Amino acid sequence: MIILNKQQILDKFDADAITLLLKEGFIAFSQKQVQMPPVQHLLFEQANGDCCIKSGYLQGDSQFVVKVSGGFYNNPAQGLASNQGLMMAFSAQTGEPQAILLDEGWLTALRTALAGRIVAELCAPTHISTIGIVGTGMQARLHLMYLKSVISCRQLWVWGRSETALEEYRQYAEEEGFAVNTTLDAAELGRQCQFIVTTTPSREAILQAADIQPGTHITAVGADGAGKHELAAELVAKAGKILVDSWAQCTEFGEVSQAFQLGLLDYHAFTEVGSALTSGGSFRDNDQQITLADLTGLGIQDVQIVKGILRQ
Amino acid sequence: MIILNKQQILDKFDADAITLLLKEGFIAFSQKQVQMPPVQHLLFEQANGDCCIKSGYLQGDSQFVVKVSGGFYNNPAQGLASNQGLMMAFSAQTGEPQAILLDEGWLTALRTALAGRIVAELCAPTHISTIGIVGTGMQARLHLMYLKSVISCRQLWVWGRSETALEEYRQYAEEEGFAVNTTLDAAELGRQCQFIVTTTPSREAILQAADIQPGTHITAVGADGAGKHELAAELVAKAGKILVDSWAQCTEFGEVSQAFQLGLLDYHAFTEVGSALTSGGSFRDNDQQITLADLTGLGIQDVQIVKGILRQ
Repeated sequence: MIILNKQQILDKFDADAITLLLKEGFIAFSQKQVQMPPVQHLLFEQANGDCCIKSGYLQGDSQFVVKVSGGFYNNPAQGLASNQGLMMAFSAQTGEPQAILLDEGWLTALRTALAGRIVAELCAPTHISTIGIVGTGMQARLHLMYLKSVISCRQLWVWGRSETALEEYRQYAEEEGFAVNTTLDAAELGRQCQFIVTTTPSREAILQAADIQPGTHITAVGADGAGKHELAAELVAKAGKILVDSWAQCTEFGEVSQAFQLGLLDYHAFTEVGSALTSGGSFRDNDQQITLADLTGLGIQDVQIVKGILRQ
Repeated sequence: MIILNKQQILDKFDADAITLLLKEGFIAFSQKQVQMPPVQHLLFEQANGDCCIKSGYLQGDSQFVVKVSGGFYNNPAQGLASNQGLMMAFSAQTGEPQAILLDEGWLTALRTALAGRIVAELCAPTHISTIGIVGTGMQARLHLMYLKSVISCRQLWVWGRSETALEEYRQYAEEEGFAVNTTLDAAELGRQCQFIVTTTPSREAILQAADIQPGTHITAVGADGAGKHELAAELVAKAGKILVDSWAQCTEFGEVSQAFQLGLLDYHAFTEVGSALTSGGSFRDNDQQITLADLTGLGIQDVQIVKGILRQ
């Protein structure tokens, strides 16, 4: 059995090769070629933490993958990363453990950011004068890094709850080549930006329907468990087209779940990423449409990123 | 982070200490003090294999546990154990991985056998002339080993599908001090025995209602996923009292699920092990009653056995 630590994993990480595997994974998922049991969630209120356990098997593969992924939001105060966890590969022939990837949550963060890049290719409006990032953590950084290869805009607004975190993010984003404005007022970010990514574990809406301009795209990646959401239900309902990684997961606990459960949206409002990739071309109908992508994270993404790492 | 191999784990295994922890776990589970998400199941038809993923957290504990447990039934032909898997402990304060227990499925087998011992204390009839074991694999062996401390009977019938496996089991059981009869006819075993344990991954009934004598207890541990069962639905319905490890799991995919879903039993037919332990005394009302225990396996058992190993 192989055990890889974070540095060994990052040394084997090839973003473009893994992006192709992720696209294949989304398509296989939407074509029902993936076994992906419902996500397990654990909540640790005393530690301001949560954990999700995902597993997946792409029919015909020689291995299956199990992932344990935690978010412990008091960790940064102790000098630890919020994201924790590991991924494992097991033989689909004998059940034997083959590899443990002690990635400290990095592979989850990376495959989420790469899913954001895939979604950006499908949904971004033609003209983007300013990108908006809601949140200042790891996902806010990785998302920005990988957007650079598919969006040419280098003007950025970033929203956070803390001036210190915003200044740290500014420094990061400037090093990535962006001209950066920071704000504590999410509505201001909404007014300025045509491509917005929300990346927080918030349990209350940060962006409201009135904040968003026609033609804007929003990728929401924070809602990965019951009760988490970053967008007001009325904003979700205002979207002209909605992309979801999984119809089942997103309507159960994703960003769109509240609007769906309130009856503001019906089944037909959603298209899975895998179906949009199969159709090809832009998901967006026109430049006035608000588009929304809800990424709850799929076990098949873990399957594919582990495959990509172990191939190297 | 600690990584323990099978031998290191077995060296730390204290059956009596862990039995006490398991009892505490069953009680805590029935008192709703345990977070235990629904089990994830994967199926590998091409390899005659399956895998279940369980997790659990006992409120107030410093750690939570995730377990990956596979049964790959072509393995023995390659000289590998059918049971595969590992258990992991993570900090409930920071989410960091604390220990990986490469137990090759042993801890699952052991905690299942110890649960059988707990059930035997609750359900065994006063007079047992013969014990019956259905199956010849690892669980059939471990169950017998741990029954010895709570049942004085040393007469044994064992059923299997292969003469070779039966002869190997006979040798094992004789070394454990039993006088052994083997049979390929489960009905014959049913006629002879007052305490029966079924331990196979069968997907069709092995024991029928007509095979079982009044006053018999049956512990069924094979059904841990949809479609698996060892007892005819009519036999399940014939039981005067039924113990389940989890009402939710057993009615969904346990041995009793078929009879429940056919409407042969209603909600009130079942008592959870944790509730029976809280009540104290014998679960059995009289020596003519057929009692049945359906053990699907709980994440809290994994939590408690890992706790027991890591304490040593």
